[in-house]
Amino acid sequence: MCAELSALDGAGSFKEDRWQRPGGGGGISAVLAEGALFEKAGVNTSTVWGEFDDVALKKLGGGERAFHATGISMVFHPRSPMVPTMHANFRFLRRGADSWFGGGADLTPYYPQRGDVIAFHQVWKDTCERHGSGLYDRYKRWCDQYFYIPHRSECRGVGGIFFDDVRDDPEAAFAFVTDACRNVVAPYLPIVERRRDEPYGERERAFQLFRRGRYVEFNLVYDRGTIFGLATHGRPESILMSLPPLAGWWYDYKPEPRSREADAMAFFQPQDWLATER
Amino acid sequence: MCAELSALDGAGSFKEDRWQRPGGGGGISAVLAEGALFEKAGVNTSTVWGEFDDVALKKLGGGERAFHATGISMVFHPRSPMVPTMHANFRFLRRGADSWFGGGADLTPYYPQRGDVIAFHQVWKDTCERHGSGLYDRYKRWCDQYFYIPHRSECRGVGGIFFDDVRDDPEAAFAFVTDACRNVVAPYLPIVERRRDEPYGERERAFQLFRRGRYVEFNLVYDRGTIFGLATHGRPESILMSLPPLAGWWYDYKPEPRSREADAMAFFQPQDWLATER
Repeated sequence: MCAELSALDGAGSFKEDRWQRPGGGGGISAVLAEGALFEKAGVNTSTVWGEFDDVALKKLGGGERAFHATGISMVFHPRSPMVPTMHANFRFLRRGADSWFGGGADLTPYYPQRGDVIAFHQVWKDTCERHGSGLYDRYKRWCDQYFYIPHRSECRGVGGIFFDDVRDDPEAAFAFVTDACRNVVAPYLPIVERRRDEPYGERERAFQLFRRGRYVEFNLVYDRGTIFGLATHGRPESILMSLPPLAGWWYDYKPEPRSREADAMAFFQPQDWLATER
Repeated sequence: MCAELSALDGAGSFKEDRWQRPGGGGGISAVLAEGALFEKAGVNTSTVWGEFDDVALKKLGGGERAFHATGISMVFHPRSPMVPTMHANFRFLRRGADSWFGGGADLTPYYPQRGDVIAFHQVWKDTCERHGSGLYDRYKRWCDQYFYIPHRSECRGVGGIFFDDVRDDPEAAFAFVTDACRNVVAPYLPIVERRRDEPYGERERAFQLFRRGRYVEFNLVYDRGTIFGLATHGRPESILMSLPPLAGWWYDYKPEPRSREADAMAFFQPQDWLATER
């Protein structure tokens, strides 16, 4: 995956850090920084285990202390505001005698193009439907709910798929997660190729930084993986690799009515992207 | 206060927004953006009341639903990395039959100067000691604990004072909070005047953006006021006014050994700034 992304970037290469967690386990963080295409792109794998301390247990609302978590997560932050950010994560968790799969993949464009969004969802629908009819619809809606930022009344991006607490049929879930992992970057590549050479200026860059602010808000306030990682004393640089390299908060910023930025904002409400395709 | 800050800035002026909270109450947000001195400076006052919903109650760990909160909060983010950011907040909260005061004032320099830090703490010590011997020591230590970022093993800045859950002697607490409010900007002004004309370049600006990233991490992950505000559906632009206009996250950034940036990092561990003054 790193080789593929590196080739796509054309200039940057991944720096790999292997780390160990004092309480048990460790991982590998691979990050490409200041590339030609990517301002920051990271791929993390980790397997950690141990016992939740009191602070972590309180944050998680009680329950068993013993945990085991293994997963892969990736976030690609392009430099150009015309190219969307992509995130994906797949994980298997154990807590006491309980165990479950979770994960998903989602797209966060700055200047969204309807065709790109539909294409991204269509590929994920195809992957999902190989593993069960209706899976895409369920995971697509779950994604809209999960990446909703209540205090902004908007979504982080244009969604994709998300699932968690999948414990009913572990063999089927593992087959799905394996398939999803193998095909995780594919839906992103054609969008990158279509958008990477589009011109942009300071105005577009500013809008990107503003939207990245929302990305930071979601990740630090609501994201389960981030909260879990920080609460279990994971490696902060690996957990927060997901944060954009640069983000802005300008007081009470609102896009001008009927501007391209206002059009973009309309994409960040849940909607049925594949409706017209049916 | 806004007039004083506006005069200090020399170019920018405060924009005032009055807002109402659907569940009860409202406030005034005054923000100066893109000034000569301040990149973003905000002063919020609000009085809100209502009932915690289930989500808020869970976040707060249960208890009474009825609440009433009134307070003032301010954050000054200068453009120059040579000038520290300042934050202060004073509040009175009621929950069911219980009520208490909280608040504090703290400094977040980017390139800290020992003399500035000592002077800031000394003025706050003077204010505290007018209201009780040992008050500064207690509130100074509380501040170090409160603004500690566990996942980074460092403080947000160089501290100041912080207190919460002060309910024993409401008359005395109100007298202290009144005195603190009246003198809240004074300890900051001489530092601004000393540092505002210091030259800086891209290197210093980058370090400021990096440190501002830590500011965002603290506010969104740990700050009680932010969590309370978002959980009680306060006005997001007023609550998140505290966030810096621009912040950066560069993977695994570490200052060069023996650089000015490395020296700065040493200030962000709790220490007894007034020890040599005794």
